[in-house]
Amino acid sequence: MTLGCPYGTHRVLEPKGVFPQPALRLNNDFSILYDNEILIEVEILNIDSASFTQIKHQADGDPAKIADILLKTVAQRGKQHNPVTGSGGMLVGKIKAIGSALQQRPIQVGDPIATLVSLSLTPLRIDDIIAVHKETEQVEIRGEAVLFESGIYAKLPSDLPQKLALAVLDVAGAPAQTAKIVKPGDTVVVIGGGGKSGLLCLHEACKRTGVTGKVIGLSHSAAGIERMKKSGLPVIPLQGDARDALWVLHQIERLTEGRLADLTINVVNIPQTELGSILATKNRGIVYFFSMATSFTAAALGAEGIGKDLTMLVGNGYTEGHAEIALEVLRENLHLRQLYERTYA
Amino acid sequence: MTLGCPYGTHRVLEPKGVFPQPALRLNNDFSILYDNEILIEVEILNIDSASFTQIKHQADGDPAKIADILLKTVAQRGKQHNPVTGSGGMLVGKIKAIGSALQQRPIQVGDPIATLVSLSLTPLRIDDIIAVHKETEQVEIRGEAVLFESGIYAKLPSDLPQKLALAVLDVAGAPAQTAKIVKPGDTVVVIGGGGKSGLLCLHEACKRTGVTGKVIGLSHSAAGIERMKKSGLPVIPLQGDARDALWVLHQIERLTEGRLADLTINVVNIPQTELGSILATKNRGIVYFFSMATSFTAAALGAEGIGKDLTMLVGNGYTEGHAEIALEVLRENLHLRQLYERTYA
Repeated sequence: MTLGCPYGTHRVLEPKGVFPQPALRLNNDFSILYDNEILIEVEILNIDSASFTQIKHQADGDPAKIADILLKTVAQRGKQHNPVTGSGGMLVGKIKAIGSALQQRPIQVGDPIATLVSLSLTPLRIDDIIAVHKETEQVEIRGEAVLFESGIYAKLPSDLPQKLALAVLDVAGAPAQTAKIVKPGDTVVVIGGGGKSGLLCLHEACKRTGVTGKVIGLSHSAAGIERMKKSGLPVIPLQGDARDALWVLHQIERLTEGRLADLTINVVNIPQTELGSILATKNRGIVYFFSMATSFTAAALGAEGIGKDLTMLVGNGYTEGHAEIALEVLRENLHLRQLYERTYA
Repeated sequence: MTLGCPYGTHRVLEPKGVFPQPALRLNNDFSILYDNEILIEVEILNIDSASFTQIKHQADGDPAKIADILLKTVAQRGKQHNPVTGSGGMLVGKIKAIGSALQQRPIQVGDPIATLVSLSLTPLRIDDIIAVHKETEQVEIRGEAVLFESGIYAKLPSDLPQKLALAVLDVAGAPAQTAKIVKPGDTVVVIGGGGKSGLLCLHEACKRTGVTGKVIGLSHSAAGIERMKKSGLPVIPLQGDARDALWVLHQIERLTEGRLADLTINVVNIPQTELGSILATKNRGIVYFFSMATSFTAAALGAEGIGKDLTMLVGNGYTEGHAEIALEVLRENLHLRQLYERTYA
């Protein structure tokens, strides 16, 4: 057997010399495995929310057409890397083989795991699509995938149902980063607070800012507002359109006596919410863009355009301990766990 | 007269309700001025580097075609907002009129100023294009523009030539942010270090990290390497292709005894350098993306894809004191001033 590149460049077919994520096509022939690869028998694909929204729209909401689009993408690219949004998602499966160079890892063939790297860089072969679950953005398949040596993953916890854990792990980066950034007494705005990632962020924001802080959750839909109210968290719910930047500014001014937010976390899966996020935040504050629909230039030029001196962060889906932090939210907050089970799992 | 929105939404024609930057079309009829607007007689457009590179490519390098593209964009959009790159640039001119609500400002009609907000949100009318300077990415025109109440600007300093000051102010954000982030002893990598913005960043990086630090400048071209060498700064020059992420990793490992960079600043105006920037940086380090060619998803998924826990920042063109910091570089470093005068002004 042979040792592949830790970052998986040995699986890149086109263009040569790039990494698996920006690559146009990966080699998904798993009849030859490298010594530092893990082969996974895939059970569920958890499509990234921006990607699933785009695919659902393109398919006019038809599950069969959604399946066709997924099959076509994977056949063409050797990975579920949405060519429109550029994003992926993650998967759950059972370990089928562990390369000889990774035998010291605390995992065994048969272990249920979730990959915590994006599907946009994970070699994948789909043999069959069993079911498309539009409400959870999860797709049951038969197929195989490979995890590279640098690829992060989590063994699925035994005290939480698999689909539930997967839904949480998919968005684990945002609540973990929230936990690390929010300081006691901070005013925090979560744009997209009623969504899958937003609810976990709201939990961490409330917990870390504490009784001297203020947490505002913005959601476009009545359902999102309802979920925030049912979360058991001391969140101020705000319903409206985050793309209407002036409206966002006026509402956050009203709710903070003109002081604005110390930290704004954007986890909403629609474009053109950059300026609203910037306007919601005070000078020298922080905006954390976690939405894959974020436009780099809209953010950069938006802040400059209104002469606002703030720190803007690109959401990193990985931070140390992110899986543990995110899964723990569901153990700490029974209301959220119930909401999650009803809505996303 | 009437008061416009401080952010200039009163000039947005299409689509209604958005801010001037994301707008498709602005009202550039300056026969009616609002009370909180400043009218400028424009002399020079300093096109954003990513935008100029794209336009030059589209025009096959022909100055007349470049002029046509600029005229067409401004006729269609009422602003020099490159529809491909999404970026703008800045302008220099003389103040022609000051709205009654801004009379307390320390400026007078006739003052030479540079706008420090992007052209992508500045209402502009071009009457004539006098000359296209490909080497400096500056375009001499006759025309008018309007600055909104929130729009930042700088009076041009009397001890520096106008074109020189403009070239510096155009990229003032990056060196000022560098000055604020670099700590003594840091290892700093500047990707695009031989360029207009990169040279100023190198100066600030060397100054702030001091004798216990290390500063590496990466440039694709021999000319860029030559400029770094002539800058008089204790920079380690590195020539190569920043899109080749693995090559970047191996070189930065070699130059830092495997420790990698505490801070990587990306100011190179070409796409697909996100992963190289991430790989050059140590775990828990910082990557500062200043290039308008940065892809948000490539950065976000790139870090996650290799399981790297680092802070990624969206370059904010504005930070307090940025014009003063950047202009001061040319007073502190005579070598850089001479280089700048020869190359960019």
